[in-house]
Amino acid sequence: MTARLSEDEIIATCFAPLAGPGGLRLLDDAALISPPEGADLVLTTDALVAGVHFFADDPPEAIAAKALRVNLSDLAAKGADPAGFLLTLALPPDWRSDWLADFARGLGEDAGRYACPLLGGDTVRTPGPLSLSITAFGTVPRGSMVKRTGVRPDDVIYVSGTIGDAALGLQLRLGDAAWGGALPEEHCQFLRDRYLLPQPRLALRQVLRDHAHAGMDVSDGLVGDLTKMLRVSGVSAEIELARVPLSAAGAAARHIAASLFDTAVTGGDDYEVLLSVAPDGCRAFEAAAAAAGVPVTMIGAAGQGAGPVAFRGADGQPRMFAKGSFSHF
Amino acid sequence: MTARLSEDEIIATCFAPLAGPGGLRLLDDAALISPPEGADLVLTTDALVAGVHFFADDPPEAIAAKALRVNLSDLAAKGADPAGFLLTLALPPDWRSDWLADFARGLGEDAGRYACPLLGGDTVRTPGPLSLSITAFGTVPRGSMVKRTGVRPDDVIYVSGTIGDAALGLQLRLGDAAWGGALPEEHCQFLRDRYLLPQPRLALRQVLRDHAHAGMDVSDGLVGDLTKMLRVSGVSAEIELARVPLSAAGAAARHIAASLFDTAVTGGDDYEVLLSVAPDGCRAFEAAAAAAGVPVTMIGAAGQGAGPVAFRGADGQPRMFAKGSFSHF
Repeated sequence: MTARLSEDEIIATCFAPLAGPGGLRLLDDAALISPPEGADLVLTTDALVAGVHFFADDPPEAIAAKALRVNLSDLAAKGADPAGFLLTLALPPDWRSDWLADFARGLGEDAGRYACPLLGGDTVRTPGPLSLSITAFGTVPRGSMVKRTGVRPDDVIYVSGTIGDAALGLQLRLGDAAWGGALPEEHCQFLRDRYLLPQPRLALRQVLRDHAHAGMDVSDGLVGDLTKMLRVSGVSAEIELARVPLSAAGAAARHIAASLFDTAVTGGDDYEVLLSVAPDGCRAFEAAAAAAGVPVTMIGAAGQGAGPVAFRGADGQPRMFAKGSFSHF
Repeated sequence: MTARLSEDEIIATCFAPLAGPGGLRLLDDAALISPPEGADLVLTTDALVAGVHFFADDPPEAIAAKALRVNLSDLAAKGADPAGFLLTLALPPDWRSDWLADFARGLGEDAGRYACPLLGGDTVRTPGPLSLSITAFGTVPRGSMVKRTGVRPDDVIYVSGTIGDAALGLQLRLGDAAWGGALPEEHCQFLRDRYLLPQPRLALRQVLRDHAHAGMDVSDGLVGDLTKMLRVSGVSAEIELARVPLSAAGAAARHIAASLFDTAVTGGDDYEVLLSVAPDGCRAFEAAAAAAGVPVTMIGAAGQGAGPVAFRGADGQPRMFAKGSFSHF
């Protein structure tokens, strides 16, 4: 049985060692960022609730890593360099000090890995489930944040990595995936890992600043997020579903059950980047993405003006999705 | 019965009208701050849970206002000019659209009142109680944030406004204050209001930047917060409790039950500013505070070096506090 720590002890023992210079050793009630001259600050925040956004019995290190990475994924899609983050943690009545120590260790490892130090936060108790929210800060040269509203007519639309792995991994994690038994274990493991641990595409951030007209991260499903990005940009688009990149594991799952393709393109938690590029900029963009080591795939193109997003299947026929996106809400 | 809104509808109808320019009409997944050249950004975050930090049946406008104001109080104590905030809202299963509309209206009124626009946020659902956290941003000329660690030997220690009103108001709100019956109703109302609606001391921010060596807001009780500020500054202090400023209502309550003085100086939620000033800077500081319209009271002085904080009663005798500060944790 581990003794329970007070709030001050939690801060001093678990979190102060993670603090960057702007965190002022967590001795202050505020944190400080001195942005480079001529920089804009990009702000993003995501909240996660046990039982809604993650499983309460997930490893604490993985919960911490996911909370930070979903925010880093937003920064990546905006072309921003990480500068630090604030953590708000609401602990339920049965919280344990060793759980918290593991959580802080996982958070510290990722803060180091992504050069995004802890700057401060707040720890409270809740009679409800464990909840946390992270607010992350990034910097971009003034005026260069990649916006969701920036798709222009005739832009070519790309997505990074592979789509649907996390949604399939979640089905496996929930244990209600009959198809899981037919899939080789290494594929199952890959899909489960993709659900548990997002890989923010920070390697793309400079490439996005240099080449993308618009960008967002895919967190609520490709179909819904694409629809949202084009709606707020005010342009139509045509998407070829056959081009949507699947992993080897995702392709194998679809081979077992064709309906899993819909799960893949409407499920959430991809944390890949969706973006648009001018038609005459594609070659340079693809070369830059390759140099950054991130696979990108052209999946369609924007139209000439306002209008809906048309999805076409491999047979060339239009496809409709009853539920375009996953909603945690 | 009001129809329930989707997350996108909540954002569009309740929160988008509150968004400042950096909020990008809440159409993006990130927000933007373009800090003035040569500015530092001050960051602070506070989480509030229904049943822990406020009453679930408090007016929604007041819950919103409190959530924003506790953060503005932090900015004020750091000498920062408000620049905007992010809101994270976790809604319980029984949330109602009309509750949310009232909440958003209260938030918008305060965002306008304090020139601190909404920049973005995240809305999720929770099986637990309503929870919210606000991260607020302020700016200061580079290097001029007023730190908690800045008390110097021989500094004079001041506090703004009056102490203990909110702690007494909370007792009245809980209905377990036998002394409440002996207190005139206008005093009771004043104390309850001081609990419900903090008044962030933003009028002091320039004064603090110009005159204070150290500052923090009093949120967890004067005795505990003073002890914390002096400990992290590494200096001792002597505090004369007879000097601690009470409101007319607070003084009347203490007259009914002398033990309420301890409640006043150890209770939380004051949201006044505690600060230190060089001995030869007191006259200028007091004049500047008066010009800003904020009452300030000298309550003691720092010693020559490291050591504890000594509290002395009106009789000159040392006073110890079993529980120096209120902890929500």
